[in-house]
Amino acid sequence: MDAFVVTAQQPEMETHMVAPQNPTVVVEHYFAAFNAGNAAAIGALFADDASVQDPIGTPSHIGREAITQFYQAAINTGARLTPTGAIRVAGKHVAFPFCVQLEVGGSEMIIEVIDTMRFDDEGQIEEMRAYFNTTGVRDFLV
Amino acid sequence: MDAFVVTAQQPEMETHMVAPQNPTVVVEHYFAAFNAGNAAAIGALFADDASVQDPIGTPSHIGREAITQFYQAAINTGARLTPTGAIRVAGKHVAFPFCVQLEVGGSEMIIEVIDTMRFDDEGQIEEMRAYFNTTGVRDFLV
Repeated sequence: MDAFVVTAQQPEMETHMVAPQNPTVVVEHYFAAFNAGNAAAIGALFADDASVQDPIGTPSHIGREAITQFYQAAINTGARLTPTGAIRVAGKHVAFPFCVQLEVGGSEMIIEVIDTMRFDDEGQIEEMRAYFNTTGVRDFLV
Repeated sequence: MDAFVVTAQQPEMETHMVAPQNPTVVVEHYFAAFNAGNAAAIGALFADDASVQDPIGTPSHIGREAITQFYQAAINTGARLTPTGAIRVAGKHVAFPFCVQLEVGGSEMIIEVIDTMRFDDEGQIEEMRAYFNTTGVRDFLV
């Protein structure tokens, strides 16, 4: 995935690049952009009218601008994402497990998450839903 | 989860039991019922008008009878399910990773899957979607 490595030093280029078509590559890009702190590069992976529920069941963030702002806020928490298993690709749908490392009150917290995504014909993310145990983390994350 | 262990020797009892309320327990029950070959016990975990897409993006199996038949066919393949990570519970939504072991043409095949489920107020599964790499397994599974 060298071609899609995102670094904080090149946000402009990454923001305006054409989204990769392959869902697996998009997911790799998503992780790299998040961990590089590049919310605009994440936003560029989504369709104009995409929706994000994180966690699922809560109000949606709709549209690239709102989604980019949401990811900027998530990045600002200092969270780091680490894949913990295979990306499952079923046509235009993917699901993948990962963990979020977060420092809360001086101690490290690890949250196990599964994201699902639906892609459009252009390979952009139309819908993202995040699944994690909301009990106990609701107070400061939701 | 002793109270929810399902064995092939007691299908009547398990078929008519009240569905557990707790999503995590329902998922444990789901695995146990599948590996015990008890399709009726799996069907009993679903709401009357539930829908199943397995894999996601393919036509839905709708209603408990159709869903039970679908699981009976899956059980008949000799597949075994093994959880491979935490069950993520976000309110009435869960997602969990597992693998399916299957003997195909004399050799063992392992398919990595993520299921998502949505529950109703009674703790029954309203919707199930299965995510796995469909390329390559499409010919004999889909």
